Amino acid sequence: MSLIVQKFGGTSVASISHIENVARRILKTRDAGHEVVVVVSAMGHETDRLDDLAREIGITPEMHREVDALLSTGEQVTTALLSMVLTKMGCPARSYTGGQVKILTDSAHTRARILEIDEEKLRADIGEGIIPVVAGFQGVDARGDITTLGRGGSDTTAVALAAALTADECQIYTDVDGVYTTDPRVVEGARCLERITFEEMLELASLGSRVLHTRAVEFASKYQVPLRVLSSFRDVPGTLITREDESGMEQPVISGIAFTRDEAKLTVLGVSDIPGIASRILGPISDANIEVDMIVQNVAADNSTDFTFTVGRNDYDQARKILDQVAREIDAREVSGDNKIAKLSLVGVGMRSHAGVASRMFRTLSEESINIQMISTSEIKISVVIAEKYLELAVRALHSAFDLAGEEE
Amino acid sequence: MSLIVQKFGGTSVASISHIENVARRILKTRDAGHEVVVVVSAMGHETDRLDDLAREIGITPEMHREVDALLSTGEQVTTALLSMVLTKMGCPARSYTGGQVKILTDSAHTRARILEIDEEKLRADIGEGIIPVVAGFQGVDARGDITTLGRGGSDTTAVALAAALTADECQIYTDVDGVYTTDPRVVEGARCLERITFEEMLELASLGSRVLHTRAVEFASKYQVPLRVLSSFRDVPGTLITREDESGMEQPVISGIAFTRDEAKLTVLGVSDIPGIASRILGPISDANIEVDMIVQNVAADNSTDFTFTVGRNDYDQARKILDQVAREIDAREVSGDNKIAKLSLVGVGMRSHAGVASRMFRTLSEESINIQMISTSEIKISVVIAEKYLELAVRALHSAFDLAGEEE
Repeated sequence: MSLIVQKFGGTSVASISHIENVARRILKTRDAGHEVVVVVSAMGHETDRLDDLAREIGITPEMHREVDALLSTGEQVTTALLSMVLTKMGCPARSYTGGQVKILTDSAHTRARILEIDEEKLRADIGEGIIPVVAGFQGVDARGDITTLGRGGSDTTAVALAAALTADECQIYTDVDGVYTTDPRVVEGARCLERITFEEMLELASLGSRVLHTRAVEFASKYQVPLRVLSSFRDVPGTLITREDESGMEQPVISGIAFTRDEAKLTVLGVSDIPGIASRILGPISDANIEVDMIVQNVAADNSTDFTFTVGRNDYDQARKILDQVAREIDAREVSGDNKIAKLSLVGVGMRSHAGVASRMFRTLSEESINIQMISTSEIKISVVIAEKYLELAVRALHSAFDLAGEEE
Repeated sequence: MSLIVQKFGGTSVASISHIENVARRILKTRDAGHEVVVVVSAMGHETDRLDDLAREIGITPEMHREVDALLSTGEQVTTALLSMVLTKMGCPARSYTGGQVKILTDSAHTRARILEIDEEKLRADIGEGIIPVVAGFQGVDARGDITTLGRGGSDTTAVALAAALTADECQIYTDVDGVYTTDPRVVEGARCLERITFEEMLELASLGSRVLHTRAVEFASKYQVPLRVLSSFRDVPGTLITREDESGMEQPVISGIAFTRDEAKLTVLGVSDIPGIASRILGPISDANIEVDMIVQNVAADNSTDFTFTVGRNDYDQARKILDQVAREIDAREVSGDNKIAKLSLVGVGMRSHAGVASRMFRTLSEESINIQMISTSEIKISVVIAEKYLELAVRALHSAFDLAGEEE
């Protein structure tokens, strides 16, 4: 008998009939002899509906305590409905808000961090054969104020509960079958991975894979909670995210290809190569709350260099305006930009021990006559920026070059 | 400086612009130098929306804990939004669920009773110039489970908070101007009462006046909380509900005329006049959860009597079926019924000291050729059942006969 935490996202609980489907899945796990603790998100577009009400007023930072009280109701509704459906199906269940569990957080409203979980009530329920259904995304601070955990919060709740309960597995149910080698909408032969490491998942998540939020993966990695991504709608084993060495087998060189389209790059040309110039360029960008992703600066020639970075495409116009001003101040030659770019990344822990991944990647792109505009690397990842129009072509070519569709399972 | 509890119902907070209107009213009270604690209901049809979700599942008694968790979110949403709007208008405010205050109740889910209120947080806020906005209709039991107070719950929350804080007044904002001598839709000259006693209000509430729920009036009466009913939308003084002797003035004989249309009567004819017969008739009715209102049994002639009672019109068919069965069992002659009746009541504490109210009432009806089918009286009320078609005529005639439109204010 294992203890399993199961988390169901918004699309999985979008209606009463969806919730009934979720309940059947829970009962199936229980009937297989496991103990289950459930975490749920708000129904479908409920969080959007509540958010729209808040935006109609206009949110300011001093309202964040109230925004949390508002948004947290979405998950509470789902916990109650799912508990009712489970009860109707003959399985006693009990709903809990984050405050009731209690999931103690700091007081950073709208982006609180979990400090401690009191699992006493949950253990008592499990002991009595009752399934606890806990509201994701929320907690309570030391003053008793309701807090929310920010984006990806429900996944984080599930992982944190699994850690507190030392559960055998934390299952994240989504609307996809698991983690794929790349987006199946782009590459027909994209394959659902049986297993992937925390580190690879972290890179994939931070590179735009929407399956899991970075924070939940970090949390799972830190507390070594085996995490499984699987489908609410289809009976598939999904993808197990776990420690690198657990399988004892050699890892594949590359696990997946991640990409994002909504990128833009900006270059300040003819910048004097003097200390502090990077911060004079990026300071005003960061002051405007624009997030910067890749940054590349080449070695200087003639005491002059070019400085390039990427931002989200939505921030392109604002960033460009700021840079035009900055360029005048630092006496740079000119500012150029391009918002028709995409970022593509190869991820794999096998990269560490296999030389030549980068060269094979560059050769593949070159064979397709795709020009690489920027390169950035980490220990288990190589990212390149290319013209957006070549994105699908590049992903397919690399998927094939690294044999990701191969039938290893 | 007074401490005032202000309660705003669902129609008063049905949208953000409604909530802004409510916020302006609160600020007006505060700017007049008063301290304010606010209680709110769920927005417009929010409770119905949540209730529909629950009904889609099908509510059974063992789900009542979850139904409370579900329904309580409606008020929580309003507290957050109103606090945000007040904050935006420059007035610090803080939302509270029933559990956060905390409003301790028993564990009778869906119809819990308030046991105790911890007013510490509210007093602290008031001391700091912060307006507390409390969710009506809900509390928390000793186990920390969310409870709801049943119908009229938000009014009860407001009165209970006013009692706990020994507030100077509890103001219930509604979509009417106050308590009227009778329904203005029936009698053009119906007048909004300046003042009425708790007892009169109790009779009016239990007789179908929708302005205030019986339970809130009982609570206010018990703790002597001055209660004012007034309009969210118009600047009118409303009606003050208070103790009888406070004004020191003679009370008017009649304060108001209440009536309900949705009644039906049932008569068992030729019942043996033996002990226990009433319970043999009403027992099965009560077992079917049908509420009985007026009961009349006349003195027996020839050891045989007729037994008549009224029920809600919706229950008429079911009650009739049950009675047909009962009549056979107790060997009664026959069962007759009429679901085209209405009940009309005169209410007034002045009735106690003025003889002749009943005779003037009966004479007035007789002058209009309206037959009285049943009569029931209490110390400050006389109710009669008449054919429904005469209802408007009867109300207008009595309103005029007792001079209720008179300009006493």
